[in-house]
Amino acid sequence: MARLTPLSRERCLDLLASVPVGRVVFTMRALPAIRPVNHLVDGDTIVIRSNLGTGLASSATADGAVVVAYEADVIDLERRTGWTVVVTGAARLVLDEERLNRYEGQLQPWVDDTMNCVIGIDCDLVTGYELGRAG
Amino acid sequence: MARLTPLSRERCLDLLASVPVGRVVFTMRALPAIRPVNHLVDGDTIVIRSNLGTGLASSATADGAVVVAYEADVIDLERRTGWTVVVTGAARLVLDEERLNRYEGQLQPWVDDTMNCVIGIDCDLVTGYELGRAG
Repeated sequence: MARLTPLSRERCLDLLASVPVGRVVFTMRALPAIRPVNHLVDGDTIVIRSNLGTGLASSATADGAVVVAYEADVIDLERRTGWTVVVTGAARLVLDEERLNRYEGQLQPWVDDTMNCVIGIDCDLVTGYELGRAG
Repeated sequence: MARLTPLSRERCLDLLASVPVGRVVFTMRALPAIRPVNHLVDGDTIVIRSNLGTGLASSATADGAVVVAYEADVIDLERRTGWTVVVTGAARLVLDEERLNRYEGQLQPWVDDTMNCVIGIDCDLVTGYELGRAG
């Protein structure tokens, strides 16, 4: 049986930045939806490129944001060790030209898609756990 | 640049059954939530053990079900190949004693938790993609 140890916010963001891929969780037509994407961490913002644009636009609040969750994990199936980090926060289309150019240069989408918007996710709520063997 | 190829329902469920771990996506206090768990596939039902019980109970409809998404993926970071499968469907506590005993024997939770309910997720909507190199 394994043990879950909570991780600090700093450690969570470091771990998130150490992997290229995570999963964005959002609501689409009132149903829970999840999609794997690649990401980068820029300070307190997770940046992804995806075609959530339609979803974002259709369910956005007045300031153009929707709340999403973003998850990444590394789990060693043999040893039953690893970690999982979940960030919950407001997601917005990045419209600022300077940031847009920078992110588009740093973050290549894996999949060819005509709708690859650049989206920033605020790290409002950050939780993470290390999974390790109990003594 | 990679290419996404849609997979059949059968192939999706086979792939899901081929890995022990996925991520359950649900709504908790009106926020998107996600948690890695281990699973088994029993026909058209995904079975997990988790402490979503409180969440299930608090947001359940008349028949005790909530709609969740369940995702699993295998992604080769070097080659940029792999697959992702997402199942969306009604999740219900398994209360039938025979099924409960069988699942509890087959599915050991990784993490020691006093609230490990057994939950069945109907495979109502199954989508999956293979990620491969474009030619």
